[in-house]
Amino acid sequence: TEEVEDASLEDPWQDEEYFGSYGTLRLHLEMLSDKSRTKAYQQVVLSNSASLRSKVVMDLGCGTGIISLFCAQLAQPSVVYAVEASSMAEYTRQLVKQNGCEEVVTVLQGRAEEIELPEQVDILVSEWMGNCLLFEFMVESVLLARDRWLREGGVMWPSSAALTLVPCQANSYFAENMAFWERPYGLDFTPLQPLAQQEFFTKPKFSHLIEPDDCLSTPCDVIFLDMYTLKVKDLEEIEGQFQFCVKKSGFFHGFTAWFTVYFESLEAEGAAVELNTGPDSEPTHWKQTLFMLDRPVSVNAGDSISGSVLLRRNPIWRRHMTVTLHWKINGNTQETDNCQVGTKSFPMWR
Amino acid sequence: TEEVEDASLEDPWQDEEYFGSYGTLRLHLEMLSDKSRTKAYQQVVLSNSASLRSKVVMDLGCGTGIISLFCAQLAQPSVVYAVEASSMAEYTRQLVKQNGCEEVVTVLQGRAEEIELPEQVDILVSEWMGNCLLFEFMVESVLLARDRWLREGGVMWPSSAALTLVPCQANSYFAENMAFWERPYGLDFTPLQPLAQQEFFTKPKFSHLIEPDDCLSTPCDVIFLDMYTLKVKDLEEIEGQFQFCVKKSGFFHGFTAWFTVYFESLEAEGAAVELNTGPDSEPTHWKQTLFMLDRPVSVNAGDSISGSVLLRRNPIWRRHMTVTLHWKINGNTQETDNCQVGTKSFPMWR
Ligand SMILES: [Ca+2]
Ligand SMILES: [Ca+2]
Repeated sequence: TEEVEDASLEDPWQDEEYFGSYGTLRLHLEMLSDKSRTKAYQQVVLSNSASLRSKVVMDLGCGTGIISLFCAQLAQPSVVYAVEASSMAEYTRQLVKQNGCEEVVTVLQGRAEEIELPEQVDILVSEWMGNCLLFEFMVESVLLARDRWLREGGVMWPSSAALTLVPCQANSYFAENMAFWERPYGLDFTPLQPLAQQEFFTKPKFSHLIEPDDCLSTPCDVIFLDMYTLKVKDLEEIEGQFQFCVKKSGFFHGFTAWFTVYFESLEAEGAAVELNTGPDSEPTHWKQTLFMLDRPVSVNAGDSISGSVLLRRNPIWRRHMTVTLHWKINGNTQETDNCQVGTKSFPMWR
Repeated sequence: TEEVEDASLEDPWQDEEYFGSYGTLRLHLEMLSDKSRTKAYQQVVLSNSASLRSKVVMDLGCGTGIISLFCAQLAQPSVVYAVEASSMAEYTRQLVKQNGCEEVVTVLQGRAEEIELPEQVDILVSEWMGNCLLFEFMVESVLLARDRWLREGGVMWPSSAALTLVPCQANSYFAENMAFWERPYGLDFTPLQPLAQQEFFTKPKFSHLIEPDDCLSTPCDVIFLDMYTLKVKDLEEIEGQFQFCVKKSGFFHGFTAWFTVYFESLEAEGAAVELNTGPDSEPTHWKQTLFMLDRPVSVNAGDSISGSVLLRRNPIWRRHMTVTLHWKINGNTQETDNCQVGTKSFPMWR
């Protein structure tokens, strides 16, 4: 097939593109400017500072080294191995020195799968999450590093992760991209609607910000990952079920997804730190991911929407996946005949 | 040189990329959703409808055909030749038919330089403007079409264009991209500032929205183009002068540029229609273009900033140009020693 030929010419991990982009400042600035994200990691270090004393830490995909610097600044680990594959690593070294942390933080440039450490680590911390939790599949590198370098009984931060889904309205997005063509400036542009459907609704919309008010139901965790027991091969296909009760009438335009990660506490009686990227928390740089149905469906309070979500990792393009949604709407009221079944697959991106 | 080799392998006009992008809906949606832009063209047709009667019109780079459809809907031209190089042209044909305009509007797919019309035209209308007015240099196609197809005494819409400049503050952009690194989360990230300078200040920032309050002086038109007399070779180097009087004290972070185009009236006593993309008008999809100095300069009310701007078209990459700014600050007050001279060249993009 064409895809297989492409992949043999190009790198199916697209590492040059992937690590290349992390060699520029733009992405790091976006992540560092995300206060919810960065302060969550700061809080994890701060609230576990007693337990971090004399521990060996690995910070995988450390970027500018912010988490490693938090460890050195706010706790007293014996050593932090800051691992970064991109060319940012040489700047990370400068930042470690500039902040007087070179006694504690050792920067290693290399891929997680290839680096060598002089010892096993007590704690593996990483910010590996992508859009819809798994996109880019950096999590694979974290799992491989865990299996190679985390000592028996060592700690994973995040310790677990959940993917959350909610059926939602997306009135503006629908109006601006689909309804727009109906009568712009008094003209009939509907012949462009199939093109609009193809261009705006086939793939998920990243960087969507849903208002709590756009949620048609209470959100539901559909996938839960335990970072201690998750295996690389589990990533090939992950399935979850949902059952939503519609709490207000409106147009069901699609599903919105986001994730939450949890950092277990090492302190006696300590509380887990949580980084929630959903609509009830401060917006993060991940925002949310919107999956548009082909057509809006009118739903009523009391209807139920049940179904499943399947994340299927692309067998060729290893940083990509396809999200398949199945849903069934059961009308609750006599007057409506609102039983509808649908299925749609969304490549992200291939 | 490396550039010359690149250009011999690739197409220095990058037409595949350029026309390819206009074959998708995203850019057309962005332009059509820009009400200031689209309604300006609608207003031109509407306010000249009497004069358009029985005229032959060419709409160059017609995209979805919106301007041609305005002509057919709001006036009675004898024919409109709607010329579009990208694959959008086949949809344009459908839209013409859907709106019952196929008697008037003839869609021609092809490049401006290559299409053949059966006759000369009375009016050449086009929306050719890019960032900083000239970027992408679609204007060259318009001039070539003018010389080939506009009859003696025919009309150009736009009829003229001006590029406007103002010295400005850019506090947020400076804070978020440069000052940010000074002490994020209590750490010293200043070693990244040279990288930030390179990544965020070397090229102009497109899609900047300046507040009227960020202008340190009254804006000044620095370049004026007459669409009847402008020649293709004039585009190689265009120079303008400026002299600004600083009206309030603050940080001079850079210059912001935007353009205005004028559509002459064909009616007796009719007023020209103006499309102004500056900060005192409704924001357009072009927004404004920000040119950051390497370092902010403190200026005082009463200082003057004089200098020049040079737009030099890239001799290889024909859709690109370099903007070179020279400036000199003359302090007006005794207590400040505020005389500073500077020069900076900004590739857009090569
Ligand atoms: Ca990430
Ligand atoms: Ca344009």
